[in-house]
Amino acid sequence: MTAKNAFYAQSGGVTAVINASACGVIETARRHPEKIANVYAGRNGIIGALTEDLIDTSKESEADIAALRQTPSGGFGSCRYKLKSLEANKREYERLIEVFKAHDIGYFFYNGGGDSADTCYKISQLSESMGFPIQAVHVPKTVDNDLPITDNCPGFGSVAKYIATSTLEASFDVRSMCATSTKIFVIEVMGRHAGWIAAAGALVADQGIPVLTLFPEVEFDQEKFLAAVKAKVEQFGYCTVCVSEGCHYPDGRFLAEQGTRDAFGHAQLGGAAPVVANMIKEALGYKFHWAVADYLQRAARHLASKSDVDQAYALGKAAVELAVAGHNSIMPTVVRKSSSPYVWEIGHAPLSQVANVEKFMPKDFISDDGFGITDKCREYLYPLIQGEDYPPFENGLPKYVTLKLAGVPKKLSGAFEL
Amino acid sequence: MTAKNAFYAQSGGVTAVINASACGVIETARRHPEKIANVYAGRNGIIGALTEDLIDTSKESEADIAALRQTPSGGFGSCRYKLKSLEANKREYERLIEVFKAHDIGYFFYNGGGDSADTCYKISQLSESMGFPIQAVHVPKTVDNDLPITDNCPGFGSVAKYIATSTLEASFDVRSMCATSTKIFVIEVMGRHAGWIAAAGALVADQGIPVLTLFPEVEFDQEKFLAAVKAKVEQFGYCTVCVSEGCHYPDGRFLAEQGTRDAFGHAQLGGAAPVVANMIKEALGYKFHWAVADYLQRAARHLASKSDVDQAYALGKAAVELAVAGHNSIMPTVVRKSSSPYVWEIGHAPLSQVANVEKFMPKDFISDDGFGITDKCREYLYPLIQGEDYPPFENGLPKYVTLKLAGVPKKLSGAFEL
Repeated sequence: MTAKNAFYAQSGGVTAVINASACGVIETARRHPEKIANVYAGRNGIIGALTEDLIDTSKESEADIAALRQTPSGGFGSCRYKLKSLEANKREYERLIEVFKAHDIGYFFYNGGGDSADTCYKISQLSESMGFPIQAVHVPKTVDNDLPITDNCPGFGSVAKYIATSTLEASFDVRSMCATSTKIFVIEVMGRHAGWIAAAGALVADQGIPVLTLFPEVEFDQEKFLAAVKAKVEQFGYCTVCVSEGCHYPDGRFLAEQGTRDAFGHAQLGGAAPVVANMIKEALGYKFHWAVADYLQRAARHLASKSDVDQAYALGKAAVELAVAGHNSIMPTVVRKSSSPYVWEIGHAPLSQVANVEKFMPKDFISDDGFGITDKCREYLYPLIQGEDYPPFENGLPKYVTLKLAGVPKKLSGAFEL
Repeated sequence: MTAKNAFYAQSGGVTAVINASACGVIETARRHPEKIANVYAGRNGIIGALTEDLIDTSKESEADIAALRQTPSGGFGSCRYKLKSLEANKREYERLIEVFKAHDIGYFFYNGGGDSADTCYKISQLSESMGFPIQAVHVPKTVDNDLPITDNCPGFGSVAKYIATSTLEASFDVRSMCATSTKIFVIEVMGRHAGWIAAAGALVADQGIPVLTLFPEVEFDQEKFLAAVKAKVEQFGYCTVCVSEGCHYPDGRFLAEQGTRDAFGHAQLGGAAPVVANMIKEALGYKFHWAVADYLQRAARHLASKSDVDQAYALGKAAVELAVAGHNSIMPTVVRKSSSPYVWEIGHAPLSQVANVEKFMPKDFISDDGFGITDKCREYLYPLIQGEDYPPFENGLPKYVTLKLAGVPKKLSGAFEL
């Protein structure tokens, strides 16, 4: 059997550690020249495959590929572009096969979240559905931590560490000032449907911080919330609020909806923090400050969790090893063996069980009052934020790599209209 | 001469390194028992002096005082409370003298920014104006970096490092996604009147990031700004905007004014980022994300600048040494001897030259188009963000100290109405 080329693409919102998975994929592929000739990366994700805009990763030095492990964002570019079903847009699949054939691609590594797992699953069916032999392996990634089966998703642990640390630091700040000044600090965090990131903010309660968390899983009850804020301020002198962007009223309206939608049709959120802060000010008169972390949280490689970086790399490595061993339609997973001490290993799951399944926070992870987390949740979260993995610094700033991104010469004539 | 007690207080907005100055003051005072018997800290700043609510720092262990160096926020509590002039509120000064006499206080160390330097100056005049002998030394602190004479102010270097790093990381994120998604990232930073912090965001241009900076020193010109954004997006595919909370229209209106004012009568700002982002969306149609760093930036001890931590400590130490040497009405300063390599030493300035003088960015630090910084500004900024000084971590989170804060028994009868 002669070696085939591999296609690798980053998909959806990027993270502090998705490049660590890319590093794991490429370094491992380079150790299997008998099976994998070269790794072509899609420029800007799957769009690079559709438009035959491929990046030749063999042109990147070993040092630059290694530096991906320490660089946030998507080194090859990502995109929000979801393939329709085979019935709805057969043209896209025919095009992919045309490009894969032209570049002798036999492996498809897709690094993304739930929507991308669905795309990867469809690709994995091409052998059967369209007679094109390809092995598709999904590399999990999402700060939302909402993929099923895997214990957690790379990207989440680092956001969790960043949000817990930032919430702790800002709470110390407010605590210093609350006697005469700011009494309320509101931090808004990501998480459309699942409150995993917000739960990380709730960890600071373990350090004596009066924190209230607003989860997307709990319908917002303004009266109950304001009473809880008042009680915290009366007891501690101040209160920190960690609000998920997905926090919503019983009728489904987000606290923060801006009215715009992204390419997947999801509402584009942002702005729950000022809404909550002003609501408190109006009802209780407390002086407030608020922050919206937005991309800072998912890009904060400077404070990545070592567990997270190690797992992101290990999952990229495992994806290639699964492919080389002949697997298709599969996703490597993190399997937790023990929380304390934290022991994990790599497992795998069939994509049919992953695609289009969204994992929510278990109900018993949220405290009875709806504003905090349970010990079970703590036990789950702490291992994921363990360890620091600082990037190198140069001249006061992190030294992140920007790749050469040399294109692979096109072999097909004509352009493809997205 | 018998030893006197010292009073130490933190004033105004706290920073990632003000506790490092406290550490410098207390550790140095403990080495001069012949002059300084004990350091009493004001609980919540000068209010602790007025209300005779003093903290006995001798009850804190050496390890906890040392841990202050690595802990953000104000360990003794701070406040926004500006003493009026002697003529306007003689009662406050009489009360201070009453408390200082009761607790045998002969040294006054005040750790704050411009308003606090003015208070410290007034205290330093009490010998002359009210016949009470006291030595007052100001320990500079302000993320706004707007104190005169000193090369820079502790707190600023760490915010600058945090903002430059965060802007870099988020820009990498947007760069990954811009082909099909977000093209504009707006980060809002602190700085009411001076654009020092915004200038730190502009440093990422040196890493190839298309960044536009909006300074308080430059009147906002919407048309010119939108044209600049369009040009960046057309050239690079995306654009980062670093907007100061103090950015304002020619008529003085802030982009972000919320209509509330703090205890000093300053407008409370926040929300320039969404204003700018929506303005771009409306005019140019680009998808955006925005972040408001708010307290996260000034509390981010996890990413403190080593230069900044070292200087904060050195200034606290120098304040005590100046007092012990008999000085009054003085502020230790940072004197820059060389930018490359960075060499600095501690100097000092009379408070009469510091109080009520605000240092703005020099005009030649801002580029001709008003959206960036000059090489002169770069040369100034880079030394201040040099070096990392990570706090210890425990169980995934920074290990910050919370002091015991044991009170000093009151000696006066009756309360003081603020």
